[in-house]
Formats: sequence, C-alpha cells, structure tokens
Amino acid sequence: MLERYGHGGDLRTAEETYGFPARQFIDFSSNMNPFGPPEGVKRVLLQYAEQIDRYPDPAVRGLRAKLAQLHRVDEQSILIGNGAAELIDLVVRAIKPTMTALAYPCFTEYGDAIIKAGGSITPVMLSPENDFALTESMLAECNARFYMFGSPNNPTGQLVDPTLIMKLVYRGATVVVDEAFMDFIPEEEKFTLIREAAVNERLFVIRSMTKFYAIPGIRLGYMVGAPQQITALRKLQVPWSVNSLAQLIGEAVLDEQEYAARTMEWLKDERPWLIGRLEELGLRVIPGAVNYLLVQLPERPGLTAASLQYEMGRMGVLIRDASHFIGLDDSYCRFAIKLRHQNKWLLQALERGLSKFQEAGIR
Amino acid sequence: MLERYGHGGDLRTAEETYGFPARQFIDFSSNMNPFGPPEGVKRVLLQYAEQIDRYPDPAVRGLRAKLAQLHRVDEQSILIGNGAAELIDLVVRAIKPTMTALAYPCFTEYGDAIIKAGGSITPVMLSPENDFALTESMLAECNARFYMFGSPNNPTGQLVDPTLIMKLVYRGATVVVDEAFMDFIPEEEKFTLIREAAVNERLFVIRSMTKFYAIPGIRLGYMVGAPQQITALRKLQVPWSVNSLAQLIGEAVLDEQEYAARTMEWLKDERPWLIGRLEELGLRVIPGAVNYLLVQLPERPGLTAASLQYEMGRMGVLIRDASHFIGLDDSYCRFAIKLRHQNKWLLQALERGLSKFQEAGIR
Repeated sequence: MLERYGHGGDLRTAEETYGFPARQFIDFSSNMNPFGPPEGVKRVLLQYAEQIDRYPDPAVRGLRAKLAQLHRVDEQSILIGNGAAELIDLVVRAIKPTMTALAYPCFTEYGDAIIKAGGSITPVMLSPENDFALTESMLAECNARFYMFGSPNNPTGQLVDPTLIMKLVYRGATVVVDEAFMDFIPEEEKFTLIREAAVNERLFVIRSMTKFYAIPGIRLGYMVGAPQQITALRKLQVPWSVNSLAQLIGEAVLDEQEYAARTMEWLKDERPWLIGRLEELGLRVIPGAVNYLLVQLPERPGLTAASLQYEMGRMGVLIRDASHFIGLDDSYCRFAIKLRHQNKWLLQALERGLSKFQEAGIR
Repeated sequence: MLERYGHGGDLRTAEETYGFPARQFIDFSSNMNPFGPPEGVKRVLLQYAEQIDRYPDPAVRGLRAKLAQLHRVDEQSILIGNGAAELIDLVVRAIKPTMTALAYPCFTEYGDAIIKAGGSITPVMLSPENDFALTESMLAECNARFYMFGSPNNPTGQLVDPTLIMKLVYRGATVVVDEAFMDFIPEEEKFTLIREAAVNERLFVIRSMTKFYAIPGIRLGYMVGAPQQITALRKLQVPWSVNSLAQLIGEAVLDEQEYAARTMEWLKDERPWLIGRLEELGLRVIPGAVNYLLVQLPERPGLTAASLQYEMGRMGVLIRDASHFIGLDDSYCRFAIKLRHQNKWLLQALERGLSKFQEAGIR
C-alpha cells in the first residue's frame, strides 16, 4: 500500500513499491493543481540563494499583511503555519478539547491531532445514500463542544453549509473549518467562513496555499481566528516554524491572478468531462465541488481499492486507496483531476486495471 | 531593541528600527558561518522548481540514511526536524518533565518549551568568575530528573564535559544536549554525545544544520536518540514537518567537505585574532570554543548592551544584546565571528560606538 505514512502523494514509497523512479509516475493520489507552480515561484527560487543565510521573519509580517488585505481582515487575525497540518495540531493543542465531533469520512489529521492531544472523538457518520453531505439532523443529537470539518471535505469533495456551522457556534460550540481546498470553489465567497472567523473567538478557519499553487514541497498554510485566539496559538508555535522560502513564495503567488483564472477555467470544463468518462467505465462518482473525485468501484470479484491501486501503480499511475478513511469501505478510491491528456492516462490505466478483474468474475 | 521576538538575526525588526533595508546591515547578532551557503545549495535551488509540486518524503529517508552513515548510528536513531527549535519543543512535549534543570545563561528556547508544556524549571546559575563553565559541584545538589544543556552553550560558547553528562544519565536522569554549534569544534569527536545518545533511552542529542552551512532561512535540524524514543517523538511530530527543499539541501551540504575544511581553517585563525582586538578595545571576552563570542563591556556611564546595540545598529552593524539571557546583566553582548574584513567593520563600529559613552563619563 502507498499510504504507509497515512497519506497520498508519497512518491518515495511508490518508488520502493514498484521499483521505478518518482518522475516516471503520474500522481492522482494527491490533489494538486495540475498546472504546476506558477511562474512567480521560479523567480523566487532563483533569487533565494541570496536570502537563505538569514533567519526567516519570526512574525511572517509580509505574508500576513498581504493575506489580510486579500481577505479584508485584520493582520492580527492571521497566523501562518508550516502547512495546514501544523495549524490543525496547534489549534487542538491550544483548545485541548475533551470531546470532539468529527464527520467521517474526513482528513485523517483531525483525528490524529485529537488523539495525540489526549482527547476523545464522537463520530458523526456521513452516509453514502446522502452522498456524504453533512446535514443539520446529523448534528442535532451531537452535544460535543468542539467540531472539526473540512469544507470542501476531503475525501468526499462536499462543501459544508456555512449557516450550519454558524448555528453550532451560536449554540456555544467551537468549530474549526479546514478550507484547504476552498480556493478551487468558484463561489468561494458564498462558502468561506474567513470573515466570520476573524472576529469570532469560537470559530477558526484553516487554509492551505500548497494545493491551489501546487507547492506542497514547501509547506504553507494559514489560520484565521479572533486576534486574542491567534495570539494564544502563536505562543504555542515553534519559533521560525515557517521558513523564509515559504514566506516569499506565499507573497509571490498571491499576485498570480492569471494563473488563478486559468485554474478556475480548467476545472469548470475538466470536472464534468472526467466525471462523464468515469461513469461510462461503470464507476459511481460522489457529487462534490472540487479538484478531486471520490469514486466507488463496481462490484467484481477481487476488485478493491487496494488491488486496483496496485495494478495501476505498476502502470505508473498512482491513485488513492480511500478505504483508509474511516467510514469508507474498500470500494472507494480518490483521484485528483488533472489536465486532459493526463486524465486520459488515468482513464486508460483504469480501464486496463478494471479489465483484470472483469476477466475473472461475472459482471 | 532587536530581540522583539526573543532572538537575534531579526533583520525585519532591524529595518523597522533603523529605517534602512535588510541588505545594508551586517549581522553579528546571529551565529552563521560567514562563508554563506556552500555551492551545492545553489545547485539544489536551481533544480528545485521541478520538485516543489510534490509532497516531501514524510519519513525523510534520504537525509536520515546519509546522517546515519556520517555518525555511524542506526537510521532509526535519527529524527529530522523543522529546525532544532521543533526538536526542542517535541522532546519536552514527549517527556513532559515536571522539573527541569537548566544551566543559565542558556538558549531561551529550552525554558520557553518547558513552560509551554506546563513544567517547572530549577535554575543552575553559571558564574562569570568561573567563565560560565558547568562543573560537577554545581549539579551535585540538583535533584532534577530532566536536564537540558547546550554544548557548546549559547551564548557563552562553553563546551560541557561529556563525562559530566553521562554521570547524570547513569544516576537515572534524562538529558537533552543541544549540540547546534558542535560542528564548529575541531575536536568534535571528543565532545559530541551522538553515539551514546543513539543507544541510550535517557540521552538525546540535538543538532542544527543551519549554522555551519549558513542556511537558517530553510530550517533544518536533527535529533539522535534511542530508536524506541525516536519512534515516540516521530508520532508527536506534525506530518511533512520538514519541507522537501530542506531535505534536499541537507543531503547536498553533507558532501561539501572542502567547504567544511575551509570553515575550520578560518575559525582557527580568526577567533584568536578577533579576541585580541576586542581585548585591546577594553572588552572582556569569555573564553569559549566556537564561532561566536560572549563579551562584557567596560564600565562607563550610559554604556549598556542595549545602548551600544542602538548606536551600532545606526551604523548598520547588528549585535546581540545578551542581557536578555537569564543570568547575564546589561554589560554583556554577543558577536558572531565573521570574515576578516567584516570583523574589521565590527571593530570600527564598536570603537565608534564605545567612544560615544567615553566622552560623557570618566574612564
């Protein structure tokens, strides 16, 4: 299995598993913008040798100012992190919730951070019949004081209704919303809770900058919360946690408006096209909203997410075995949506992979 | 003051304080190798654009293998961190010591990490009469079960006798030794405890890779401990905590043998030369062993580390006001040792800075 360390995108493990070098794989197991990093990133890298011998700004002043302007919130409401993962860990350690409600399936790090911090989890199970949408009735019986949701949720791709989250906050709960993929949503303004989080002590929003700008190697995320909460989190954070290259790249990519527009154009067309082709292959695609797809495989003897992943990996095509997510069985996979020619490779490898199982069994 | 965020090397705060751009300062307040990053770092940066769109190896396998070979220890004994600061924080959070002994003055992060984790500190005060050396008799009365020392210690530059540390371990205590500057010591093999730490569950060694190779912008450190301890720490660590550029640069710099030799040559000559000149200016230099100097200013009306820092900062020369270290008064400064022409600037700025105070008072 490729998820030896709990996540997708682990090319080193893929190398060890299949015996060929990382650059020969096409990776649908991590959800990156397929355009690759914008041009501004290269410019920063070329100049960075002159700055690497200085400590990073411990307060990340430049990037915070730019993000504050973008989101029209106070700079004091923003904390930059060494990836969203650091911020998930920090907020849980700061709040120390005894009981947290998580809506499964969801990103593994929420539960890992809670368990590490000695807390307990009360699960809210999202249902396949309902396309894994989170509904008010599911939360009605839940009396946890702390909630973590992904919106859009990973791996389902489903957005969470922001009014549903605000109702939890108004009834006294603290909610962390992981909006790591929110910048891929055309109607972002309608769904994001950043502006609410900036002034509400019981609401936190986490953003990642590495998916939309295809820079996961460098680690960069941020959190928006009420200034007094952000100050408390900042005190828990390790000094210079965000390296200076990440700070500079973060500032640079925010100017890439043409890149952002091109990304939104591509996704608008490519998403429905790929869904259509996957359905033609007999896969059930969970309706989502973002740059990756959760799919359910057809029933065939021997066909599981793991066996399909293995067959496709041998062809150099990496997919995510989604059965590692709590609440999903071994019929679920997750694919990133990539550019048309790449998606055709996915479809071809998928067709060949599926055919191995068709032969042995009965449709 | 330049230590607004608790440390030296904060050029952004220097810009805000003195009103000219970062590149116009010469920074003696952080202890970097003055040769700047070795050539291999530039090569990695030029190629990095092709890798930034992939996740870092979550297990940092390449760099761990190389360090294991270098130190002749098992790979399972090595944990890579997002700077030494992350490793200090991790080990304290993992061990959760109720009472920790710290030998003051020492690096601020030890105490910060302990307080953050809810522990208490029992101070062992190093004495200026003794050149701030740590001696067995100072520890005899200390019954803490957990100790953190810098060796060489920051800001004093003093090495700790390794037999003294092993005695603490043998009597049942757990000791973390921060060897962030150990690679500047010619007799490193005689003073490092890496090989002992790799097999002893009560001993941890922390190393930084950013001082010797002048790459603090990127954050990179590692810890050596017994495999079962390293596994426990790894579980507490945030995923992908070490970005892929840091991993690649870490691997590259370990091949820079010529750079390492040149660094040792320079320090062997430059250290005694600079000490001589500083003493001629009337400063007392604490005998240490490493690439920075703790100095005590002469007594003159109005002359303090802070006032001298301000005067020198206006000339574009940044020094560390060491009075922020517990156990030092306002007569102590710390300077990095740099290349000869830079050290001459330091001496010139120092002479002019000191003269401001001479005028007003009586020698």
